[in-house]
Amino acid sequence: MKIIYWTINVVILGVMTAVCNSANPCCSYPCQNRGVCITQGYDNYICDCTGTEFYGKNCETPTFMKRIKLWLKPSQATVHGLLIKHQWIWSIINYFPTLSNFIMKRIYLIRSNIVDSPPTYTSEHPYITWEAAVNLSYFTRTLPPVPLDCPTPLGIWGKKTLPDAQLIVDKLFTRDKFIPDPIGSNGLFIFFAQHFTHQFFKTDFKRGPGFQWGGHGVDVSHIYGQDKGSENILRSFKDGKLRTQEINGEEWAPFLKDANVPMHYPPSTPDELKFALGHKDFGLMPGLFMYATIWMREHNRVCDVLKGEHPEWDDEQLFQTVKLIIIGETIKIVIEDYVQHLSNYNFQLTFKPELLFGTEHQYQNRIASEFNHLYHWHPLMPDSFNISGTVYTVKDFMFRPDIVVKHGMKNFVEGMIKQRAGRMSHHNHHPSTLHVAKWTIEHGRELRYQSFNQYQKRFELPPMKSFLELTGDETLAKELEELYGDIDGMEFFVGLMVEKLRPRAIFGASIIEIGGPFSVKGLMSNPICSPRYWKPSTFGGETGFDIINTASLKKLFCQNMKEECPENIAFRVPDYVEGDVAEEVKNCCKRDKNNNESVNKNTEL
Amino acid sequence: MKIIYWTINVVILGVMTAVCNSANPCCSYPCQNRGVCITQGYDNYICDCTGTEFYGKNCETPTFMKRIKLWLKPSQATVHGLLIKHQWIWSIINYFPTLSNFIMKRIYLIRSNIVDSPPTYTSEHPYITWEAAVNLSYFTRTLPPVPLDCPTPLGIWGKKTLPDAQLIVDKLFTRDKFIPDPIGSNGLFIFFAQHFTHQFFKTDFKRGPGFQWGGHGVDVSHIYGQDKGSENILRSFKDGKLRTQEINGEEWAPFLKDANVPMHYPPSTPDELKFALGHKDFGLMPGLFMYATIWMREHNRVCDVLKGEHPEWDDEQLFQTVKLIIIGETIKIVIEDYVQHLSNYNFQLTFKPELLFGTEHQYQNRIASEFNHLYHWHPLMPDSFNISGTVYTVKDFMFRPDIVVKHGMKNFVEGMIKQRAGRMSHHNHHPSTLHVAKWTIEHGRELRYQSFNQYQKRFELPPMKSFLELTGDETLAKELEELYGDIDGMEFFVGLMVEKLRPRAIFGASIIEIGGPFSVKGLMSNPICSPRYWKPSTFGGETGFDIINTASLKKLFCQNMKEECPENIAFRVPDYVEGDVAEEVKNCCKRDKNNNESVNKNTEL
Repeated sequence: MKIIYWTINVVILGVMTAVCNSANPCCSYPCQNRGVCITQGYDNYICDCTGTEFYGKNCETPTFMKRIKLWLKPSQATVHGLLIKHQWIWSIINYFPTLSNFIMKRIYLIRSNIVDSPPTYTSEHPYITWEAAVNLSYFTRTLPPVPLDCPTPLGIWGKKTLPDAQLIVDKLFTRDKFIPDPIGSNGLFIFFAQHFTHQFFKTDFKRGPGFQWGGHGVDVSHIYGQDKGSENILRSFKDGKLRTQEINGEEWAPFLKDANVPMHYPPSTPDELKFALGHKDFGLMPGLFMYATIWMREHNRVCDVLKGEHPEWDDEQLFQTVKLIIIGETIKIVIEDYVQHLSNYNFQLTFKPELLFGTEHQYQNRIASEFNHLYHWHPLMPDSFNISGTVYTVKDFMFRPDIVVKHGMKNFVEGMIKQRAGRMSHHNHHPSTLHVAKWTIEHGRELRYQSFNQYQKRFELPPMKSFLELTGDETLAKELEELYGDIDGMEFFVGLMVEKLRPRAIFGASIIEIGGPFSVKGLMSNPICSPRYWKPSTFGGETGFDIINTASLKKLFCQNMKEECPENIAFRVPDYVEGDVAEEVKNCCKRDKNNNESVNKNTEL
Repeated sequence: MKIIYWTINVVILGVMTAVCNSANPCCSYPCQNRGVCITQGYDNYICDCTGTEFYGKNCETPTFMKRIKLWLKPSQATVHGLLIKHQWIWSIINYFPTLSNFIMKRIYLIRSNIVDSPPTYTSEHPYITWEAAVNLSYFTRTLPPVPLDCPTPLGIWGKKTLPDAQLIVDKLFTRDKFIPDPIGSNGLFIFFAQHFTHQFFKTDFKRGPGFQWGGHGVDVSHIYGQDKGSENILRSFKDGKLRTQEINGEEWAPFLKDANVPMHYPPSTPDELKFALGHKDFGLMPGLFMYATIWMREHNRVCDVLKGEHPEWDDEQLFQTVKLIIIGETIKIVIEDYVQHLSNYNFQLTFKPELLFGTEHQYQNRIASEFNHLYHWHPLMPDSFNISGTVYTVKDFMFRPDIVVKHGMKNFVEGMIKQRAGRMSHHNHHPSTLHVAKWTIEHGRELRYQSFNQYQKRFELPPMKSFLELTGDETLAKELEELYGDIDGMEFFVGLMVEKLRPRAIFGASIIEIGGPFSVKGLMSNPICSPRYWKPSTFGGETGFDIINTASLKKLFCQNMKEECPENIAFRVPDYVEGDVAEEVKNCCKRDKNNNESVNKNTEL
């Protein structure tokens, strides 16, 4: 089947190239299977198939070995199906480390090998440049931008002008009625995603959406500040600890007036609402402030533990070593709690850097522009939060870190645990986040992203053949058909947002299959995962190493709470029942009643 | 033998640790075989042997497998001996790519695996920190600095105060009579070393000797400028080319007044002596200006070639692609001409990035402070240069790039080819370079380098047991004994400079065995060597790729010379006869006549 599909593809592309031969012949992306297209004169091109295991004019023919590999390789949908079903088999696999490690190593390698490392492109050039490898002020690009001399914004497909971004947002993104997430994610999950990813999604809007000001990975800059200057302001320089203040008998970050790090608060914000945090935007949401506080307390707690082990260490050694432990804890919790939850796999994911020793895994990372766009998960945001009986709308939450202080950490965390997140799909953006969706679409165009289907192919997913296949929803498919005209003319971000969810999943296939590689690569290529770092001495000895290797979301909260720890600390609401949102989806905003069936069928609710 | 040696070593260290137990117990470096020492309370330590293949209190006992590996592994002296002898065997090996590739892959892997990647230390902390991994403004450190609370500057060995740096320079470094390099290196070699390495040895003296302002590798910043601003000034923005001017019918870099990039010239320098180059210090020596000019011409030549292939490309694509080709040519010439010459091996070294595909090789690099110190090869500098009959002293050469223009490229190059370089050893620094030697010693102390013998162990060389073993020269050994007291108290840089040369070699064992890994790692971890870069399309197609794969020193000059190319373009003087410097060494400055025998024996001249 696959070979027939290639052949058809190549014929179509040949015709298209002939039709469009007045333009750059690489605009039709004739080179398949990650072959690289270079022009050869004004109307010719060559595909460089080096390293692809394919050959032919368009790198369309697999080598004999590759043919066997392709034949043996299950589709990503099949793999997903296996991972979410057959719980009893997975229980056995999870029980035996040899089996579990074998699978985990495959996951690490398969996922991270999809990402180019060293990075190859930026948004500046549609070809490889030296700057792409070395200039850290760019986001990298997984697929290079569409050349400027192409007939349409997406190459040769779609309309000459893409539909108005505001129109798309109005028609496809606006929430009329809150639709809950089908796997029961809660407020703790929403703000974990936001706080964790904002340490590396740092667009430098002044220079343009292709530029960034972060450290390209898990550098805990959201806890310690972006640079050494900020870090020094946040440090107490005693026993390795960060500065804190006590309010209502609990430890919190210092006020901005006492620790002047770069922070962004509206001009009229009173001093007692302005806290000094590692990330300038973490005053925006109390949920971000909650995580900033918990990590600050965790840092100081671990300092005490290490000081007990090493009374001979000075402040500096305690601080530097605990910072490394905090990075380790972060990655451990991200993989074993956060990714575990959002994957919804029955296979138990583990953080074991040693599984990658001796492989060709590259311990370097660059944040991709596409990963940043893909991680715009604003539909997760509910309409309001209930903290100890007080209902706060999203607007009430804005720039009010003091809400956490007022209710106390325990009550705030309990509120987060119980609040259901929104469903990651179309027609579910809270009004306060719509402008971000609009920007994202506009930035994707400014960055000249290739089409949704080009990304499908890049990440080894079958390209969509129709809008109905993409969305599983006839009304939506019709709307998209009118807006875009051609499934190959569908743009990347909008495609992600309208894609039908996978069975038992929080996302559609693309967000998982495109986001997964970036995520695994970013986590496992952290320097602390490399052989010379990943050993007890790096973390102050066995005690510090154990803190990483036994870290969990539950412990993170429970070890840093003055009061008794809330029950059910997890990324899922406590009263979650699988399939409980079918009814809500049925009555969902703007859906034609005739389409209920297809929605249900495609999300398997 | 090796195991007995370890046992003795461990006993000695145990005693030393007991004697010095009032100090930081890690000062005696008790952990062997790259085990990591961490203190445990005020008078205890633990060795972390993870990943070393050794175990025991001090990581002194090899595992069974490691024991076999050690037993099978030839010493580095044996390997060197094999590589410089048996020419007929090497001729056969060089002839068969399978054999040659097998050996070359081993060389790449064995050399580069010795270097920690990602990097582990800086000069700031004697333990692993996050900053060491991510802060590019530091040179990395292969061995961490000696802790501040140690009894002596080198841990527990040597005197409390190291001998005065000026005294060392006066006694051991000053040249009385020029001693020529035993393998016949010439001026072309001297300035190749200097121009090539100055693209990445960029100490930020304002911040201190542990800091740097470079790009940590072969980034051709010495041709294109340190940043995009300078690069743009040096570009013509036409057909991808760099700006040039014609003087005496030849192409040269523009004057500084016409292309205002950061350059360092003495204040009184007239405008017509100030050229605009990629590196601010390349106006210092005509030899640097020669290489800057040749590379500039090569860039423009390749632009013409690529423009012929790709008339459809704009200036930007030509420029960016040719820059990648120039990086490739640089690495090719460095390995196959430059390292080939300085290694003096009968095995033909090759640049074949594909040999590393699929291995655990890391495509990232960080310049080590120790590599920078080791590369202070000022003894190579002769007393004078003869260009077409005019004799210029080193002082005459300073800040006079116009000498190359005046004589013309061909005559200048001919002068360089014929000029013999100095011998890399003690008592051979030209007076104009003595201050650099003094600084280097002082910086090594400020950076708290570990001892010469600690570096020997780190790079798998047997530690020296006496000054005589180190120098092979009784008078010199005696002088060092007086200055340092203890061979384990010998400092790094001075150790390198007084070490006896290897047979048929330009250096002693340490410069090769410590410098080799840094060099191979730096060259082969360049992004262009990685699988997604190393393919024809990255370099504009087969033509561009071929330019890299057939590059040579000879072609670099001959394709960029207006006049006929000089004969014998090479890194060796044309009239070189092996062993021709024995006489000079015999009569050498400050050497006691009684020691001639040992000098000869140890250099095998």
